[in-house]
Amino acid sequence: MTFTHVVTFSWTGQAAEDPSIPDGIAETLRRWIADADLKGLRSWTCGRDAGLAEVNADFAVVAVFDDMDSYLAYRDDAEHRRIIVEDIAPHVGQRTSVQFAG
Amino acid sequence: MTFTHVVTFSWTGQAAEDPSIPDGIAETLRRWIADADLKGLRSWTCGRDAGLAEVNADFAVVAVFDDMDSYLAYRDDAEHRRIIVEDIAPHVGQRTSVQFAG
Repeated sequence: MTFTHVVTFSWTGQAAEDPSIPDGIAETLRRWIADADLKGLRSWTCGRDAGLAEVNADFAVVAVFDDMDSYLAYRDDAEHRRIIVEDIAPHVGQRTSVQFAG
Repeated sequence: MTFTHVVTFSWTGQAAEDPSIPDGIAETLRRWIADADLKGLRSWTCGRDAGLAEVNADFAVVAVFDDMDSYLAYRDDAEHRRIIVEDIAPHVGQRTSVQFAG
């Protein structure tokens, strides 16, 4: 059974005002995904909320893996950790995540 | 370009204690998805959080559509609205959602 990882972000400060910051984050993540050798990664998408509901968060990543171990390797990848700490965390107002079998 | 809908839930009250309630919600949603004629729905998955991180929410749904209009038809489907109001809303502590092109 595949394993799905979902994370949503609501931005704070400058990132909530200037879309170029979340767009830069998306670009950095996409470059990492394109270059990295992430075994078991079946699909990966991310994007800015389309604005269809006031209460929505601002950004989401959805990644589907062959299994939980493939997700754990993705989660613990050094470059992924660097992007989280240096590029994403400074801009996060709220983060919600779920990983589920399916 | 496809269009992705993500929603996460943290349950409250009995649903946070008794997994049969979120499992019942998942089953109701899966039956609706199986029976409904939802044009443009490419993939749909849901599931309970696997418990890999304390801060995680409890449950997520990920649905991918051909386009935004297909998502809007899904969102506004009468049975979907009934399930949200009658089966899900009474148990929701926190809900986070994002829809994005991708």
